[in-house]
Amino acid sequence: MNLRTLELTISYDGTRLVGWQRQAEGESVQGLLEEALAHLEGAPVTVHGAGRTDAGVHALAQVASVQLTCEHPPEVLQRALNASLPWDVRVVNVREADAAFHARFSARAKTYRYVLCNGPFVSPFEHRYVWHVREPLDLDAMQAAAQTLVGTHDFAAFCSSGSTPATTVRTIVRSSMTTRAGSALLLPPGAPGAVQAGRVDESTLLVYEVIGNGFLRHMVRAIVGTLVDIGRGRHPPAWMAALLEDGRRSDAGATAPAQGLFLVRVDYY
Amino acid sequence: MNLRTLELTISYDGTRLVGWQRQAEGESVQGLLEEALAHLEGAPVTVHGAGRTDAGVHALAQVASVQLTCEHPPEVLQRALNASLPWDVRVVNVREADAAFHARFSARAKTYRYVLCNGPFVSPFEHRYVWHVREPLDLDAMQAAAQTLVGTHDFAAFCSSGSTPATTVRTIVRSSMTTRAGSALLLPPGAPGAVQAGRVDESTLLVYEVIGNGFLRHMVRAIVGTLVDIGRGRHPPAWMAALLEDGRRSDAGATAPAQGLFLVRVDYY
Repeated sequence: MNLRTLELTISYDGTRLVGWQRQAEGESVQGLLEEALAHLEGAPVTVHGAGRTDAGVHALAQVASVQLTCEHPPEVLQRALNASLPWDVRVVNVREADAAFHARFSARAKTYRYVLCNGPFVSPFEHRYVWHVREPLDLDAMQAAAQTLVGTHDFAAFCSSGSTPATTVRTIVRSSMTTRAGSALLLPPGAPGAVQAGRVDESTLLVYEVIGNGFLRHMVRAIVGTLVDIGRGRHPPAWMAALLEDGRRSDAGATAPAQGLFLVRVDYY
Repeated sequence: MNLRTLELTISYDGTRLVGWQRQAEGESVQGLLEEALAHLEGAPVTVHGAGRTDAGVHALAQVASVQLTCEHPPEVLQRALNASLPWDVRVVNVREADAAFHARFSARAKTYRYVLCNGPFVSPFEHRYVWHVREPLDLDAMQAAAQTLVGTHDFAAFCSSGSTPATTVRTIVRSSMTTRAGSALLLPPGAPGAVQAGRVDESTLLVYEVIGNGFLRHMVRAIVGTLVDIGRGRHPPAWMAALLEDGRRSDAGATAPAQGLFLVRVDYY
């Protein structure tokens, strides 16, 4: 019985899930995958995820590794997994990996995206995937503050107080806030049949994207909470640099809600 | 007390709704709007919708008309309605209209869109908004058949058998099937951070868009069921013209599921 290592790419809508990691109660992505794989393997299996997303956080392409002895080709495994998983968790790819591959330890960078809906109302089609902020936000101030994060910094001010990592230093290679004319995900702006201008008072989607070599617990959501405080004018953009300098968690903005956060992509060496 | 006429534009996720029209049981868009408006008016009101969408059908911009005596400005009405409606029904615009305006009788054209997901699996973010067809579909054949519908024809073969309209003749000005690289609505193809090619086996979205002066009951869904039969190779594209010529409902394809259908836009004179 040869042990093979597989890389799984998984997309999930986190709305009703308790997060990546197995919990005493509720359905987790890890738990669902381990259960479905154990059925195929005929024995218990352990699945390692690249990022342990919290309850309510979504993933476009989470990556997981698993070691199996069963000999099904990757496509058969993918089909069998999708046939037994609930619709809100989809295995979008399976491939053979090197024996040394570990979804978490081999990861070089992760991309997260956080979606804010800024305006009077949220499209029903985006409701589950955004944080709704009604007050006008200063995009320029938020973008200036977001840029400050690029580089290697101590992110202690953005680390969940319950967490005690070995180091709170991380390197961020991209940190950018952009705007996207809403709404309706199924209706990209300019698409044929797009709702005529003037008839619909659209809200604006603000998309924060961050790429880094690693993220502390709740780090992206604490950054977004801080950016929104800056966008609301409660603090100047320079506040972000001051928090990096010598901030404690209680100094920064509140943790933004989970439902606006997406793990978008994981890069490997 | 002056009676004013208002035009409401409404977006809804039809998943859990019983459709536009009030029913004995369940929540309808009309019922929810009438209830919310009666509260503001202090008296019962009747709301007329441009298109009576079925249970499970979505709308990006349904239009409704209503006559009220209450004097709140449109923006105040919109805010009050959205504050009392459930999240899956949003009033995206309110404006004053001519006294003669009637959302249904004044309509010149309607645009519907139907979304098919063709491939091995459906993204969790699109699950509620597509019809999943696993077998490969011949897009060229479907597009050729779709084009046949443009013009003025008798659509009797695409009219729900329970329905008895005065005439089954309708004029279609656009009928087109296009493809859109899936998946993830929040991640348009080519967006920064898009999932790298090769890692995700994407499914393809096929989008059918039809614009006409009016539609029979279940007409768009019967057309889509017929197009899918053609795409599967069960019939040649010319079958569509034959059905227009002298088809009965039992000759055409099955009615496609409600969840892939969107009322996209209503045009007025």
